[in-house]
This record gives sequence, structure tokens and C-alpha cells, in this order.
Amino acid sequence: MDSRPIGVFDSGVGGLTVVQEIMNQLPNEEIIYFGDTARVPYGSKSKETVTKYSKQIIRFLLTKNIKAIIIACNTASSNSLEEVRKTFDIPIIGVVKPGAVMAYKTTKNKRIGIIGTEATIRSESYSKEIKKHDKEIETFSVPCPLFVPLAEEGWTDNEISYLVAKKYLEPFADLEIDTLVLGCTHYPLLKDVIQNVVGNKVQLINPALETAKDLKELLSAGNALREDKTAPNHSFYVSDNTSKFEQIAAIALKKSIPPVEIIDIEQY
Amino acid sequence: MDSRPIGVFDSGVGGLTVVQEIMNQLPNEEIIYFGDTARVPYGSKSKETVTKYSKQIIRFLLTKNIKAIIIACNTASSNSLEEVRKTFDIPIIGVVKPGAVMAYKTTKNKRIGIIGTEATIRSESYSKEIKKHDKEIETFSVPCPLFVPLAEEGWTDNEISYLVAKKYLEPFADLEIDTLVLGCTHYPLLKDVIQNVVGNKVQLINPALETAKDLKELLSAGNALREDKTAPNHSFYVSDNTSKFEQIAAIALKKSIPPVEIIDIEQY
Repeated sequence: MDSRPIGVFDSGVGGLTVVQEIMNQLPNEEIIYFGDTARVPYGSKSKETVTKYSKQIIRFLLTKNIKAIIIACNTASSNSLEEVRKTFDIPIIGVVKPGAVMAYKTTKNKRIGIIGTEATIRSESYSKEIKKHDKEIETFSVPCPLFVPLAEEGWTDNEISYLVAKKYLEPFADLEIDTLVLGCTHYPLLKDVIQNVVGNKVQLINPALETAKDLKELLSAGNALREDKTAPNHSFYVSDNTSKFEQIAAIALKKSIPPVEIIDIEQY
Repeated sequence: MDSRPIGVFDSGVGGLTVVQEIMNQLPNEEIIYFGDTARVPYGSKSKETVTKYSKQIIRFLLTKNIKAIIIACNTASSNSLEEVRKTFDIPIIGVVKPGAVMAYKTTKNKRIGIIGTEATIRSESYSKEIKKHDKEIETFSVPCPLFVPLAEEGWTDNEISYLVAKKYLEPFADLEIDTLVLGCTHYPLLKDVIQNVVGNKVQLINPALETAKDLKELLSAGNALREDKTAPNHSFYVSDNTSKFEQIAAIALKKSIPPVEIIDIEQY
């Protein structure tokens, strides 16, 4: 057994959808969360910048005596996972591989849609990972830049979010996909409106679910689950502006969180 | 006369609407522009973070032998102008004061609307500046967080931008304003849809116009205009991802710009 906490990070609040899944599947584990709210969004930034930011955050998380790291951000997982695994000597799990595996297991007609930020789509991380498992699968990718600000504004199910979803997802109508990957941790917040536009025959994939399963496997295999009888104490850190973070966290996690601390992340 | 260039900065591409006005009114001046595209948007960040970023950018611009600085960003002008004027020994002009002066000169019924980012509205910079000139004027402020991503997506005049504008600007319908300040340098890109929603009786104020006038006055009064016969060479720097910046710059300035250079702004 290993009582040390798990480090989880994202560009902002989106990664909380992953935290929620970890809390569901591993309720005894302690979590140290970092949201880079000063530099959100990552989705329009270059690979070099996203990788630099990921390294700064991992150096910060390593000061907290953690046993593993979850990159709860598709943009950072797509652009930086390989590089940070080379740099740091700690198990690191991204959200892309678990999401891709779930997608390839789900599709029946071998036609999968992928939506995400510009940087995630440009990296082709999902389509490469899916094709590693089955070369015959065809993938179709569309970046949806406005979904993150819509989710952050709380407009997740109104006429505007419906029209935006329709505009972005229209290209899928003729492509006969049966599976759609929500390739950004913010997107599950918009899942009702997305499902409405693509129709009920298309299965939505939320990579957060599979990521939490992979973490559970990793910890079980390494005999590294926390087995303390005391309730876990989670900690939340951000790079800026805690009040909005606390509000959205309360909604995403369906409970209030302890006081959030601001970190000068550029120092790491 | 003074041949040195003018430093202009913004969180991203929005400040180019100010550059365009400077080029119109002072076609002989050289401009050094910095867009903080790695850390855009500023509008949801705290006063402390925006001030820290402004100082880094000014330290960078000072390496370019400039004679004056324009903060072509309402969020940075609202939150940081006072502090950076104390720190640096160079003339610094923000966009808020010129915009506020123009608004108070324009209103007839003394009812002015102000739209901007969350950070600009929270600072109350426009209403304080307007009331310095006339205490009887009533101001009504609304933050419009989705306008910046809409402008950056290029959705400036479609059904979605109309519905978003309607949702944000609805509160003004009963307030009988006759003047509306576009308190974010991105917003002039959406001016048609904004005018459409508020109606033709409301006069829109674009602070960029007055800011360029103030700069002209400052340089004329100090005998510091550039009087070289050679055409000016402008330079553009960003903190990330130049290709999108170059595309939007070509649209905003209605001409192509020289190659854009990426700067590691956190070093300053």
C-alpha cells in the first residue's frame, strides 16, 4: 500500500470531470489538483508552449510527495505526454490513450468522430492511437474552439450552445459515424446538447471514465492503493482567480471543496 | 523630432484595431507590437496577474529603444496603468481614458452603457473616469465574455453572434442609453452585430480612435514626431503561435505584415 496522493492537472476547470471519476472509482485516494487558470486555454497554443507549461506544473506537483500523475487535459496529453515521460521518473497517465481504446472497442461500423481543441486535433493523437489498434478504422476530426468558453460561461444547454454545436458537428451528419470521442475534458459538460445534435445512434465517449479505470489498474498492479481508514484530504491549487474556480468546482464535483490556494507557477 | 518607434501591446490580436488607427492618423510612425498570444485572454484574470504580465511586456518593449507605450488592451489599461506608470520612466497611454472622454462628450441624455471583459467591468475603470468629468452621468456595465472567442473564431456576423449579442445586451433595452462604449479592443470587430441589437439611436464608442488622437497630441506637444522621409518599418512580436496571428492581422490591418517573431516573455 501507498498513502501518498495522486497529482492531477488541467489548463483550468475541465480536469475536474476527471477528478470526479477518480473520486467515484477510487474514493479512498487523496488528490492534489492543479488548474492553470492564469494561462487557460491551452487549446490554441503551440506544442512547445503546452509542453513548457506541463513541465512547470509537474515540477510543482512533485513538491507534494505524489505517487502518480494524471494529465487531465487532452491538449497537454496530446502534445506533451511523450516528452514529460522522458523527463520525469514517475508514472504519468494521459487521457488520450484510455479514450482511444474505449472508442475502438465501442465502434461497430469502424467510423469514429473526434472533437477537441485546435491543438488536440492538430496533433492527431486520437486518430494515431485508434489506428494502432485497428488500421481499418476511419476517423473524422473537427476542432470546436467555442465549446470551452461556452462551458466556462455556464451556457451548456441553451439555444446558443445548440446552434454552436450544430455548426461544428454538421460535418458528421453525412459521415455515418457510430462513435464520437469527447476529446476535451470540458466537453462532457455539454454532452446533452452534443448528443441532441448528433442523434441517439451515436455513442459518446468520455475519456475520463477510462482514465480513472487505468489509474485503478496501475495502482492495484503496483500494490500502491491507499488503504488508510481515515477519509482522504484533497487539495486544490490554481495559478489565478480562485472564486470562479470554486464555483465551477462545486458544480462539477457536486460538493464544496476546501479553500483553493494560488501558486506562482512560472517559478517552477 | 524623434525617430524612435512606439511600443504597443495587447493580450492578443485585439490591439491591432488600435494599431490600425495609429497607422491612419500617424502614418509616418514606426510601431513595435507585442501580442501575448500564449496567455490570452486577460479578461478573466486577476488584477495582480494582469499587472505582472504588463510589466514583463513593458520590460521587453524597452529593449527596443521606444519613445512611448500604448496599452492597447482595456483589461490591462483598467487594471495596471496606474501601477506601471509608477514603475517605468516613459510616457504610457491606456485606451480607457480616451474612450471615457469621448463617451462623456457624446452622450446627450447622460446615460452611457459600457461593455467589456469581466476584469475591465470589475475594475469600474470606465465609470470612474466618466464620472470624473460629469458626476450626473449614469453608467450601466455588462461583461460579455464570449465576444472575444467569437471574434477570434471569425464569427463576427452570423446567427450565433447575433444571439450572443442579444443575450448580453438585452439589459440595455430598458435603460434608455444613448451611448455604448466598446470597452474591449476585440469588440469593434463585432460592431455591426452590436449596432443591430442596440439599434441605430445608440452611438457606439471605439476608444481606439481617441487613443490614436491622444498619442498624436503627446508626440506633437513634445516635438517627438518621426519626420524621416523613409517609410516606417513596423515589427510584430507574439508569445506563441504566429500563423493564426498573421491571418487575423492581415484582416484587421487590411494588409500583410512582416514575419512575426516569437518571444519567451516569461524571461522579462
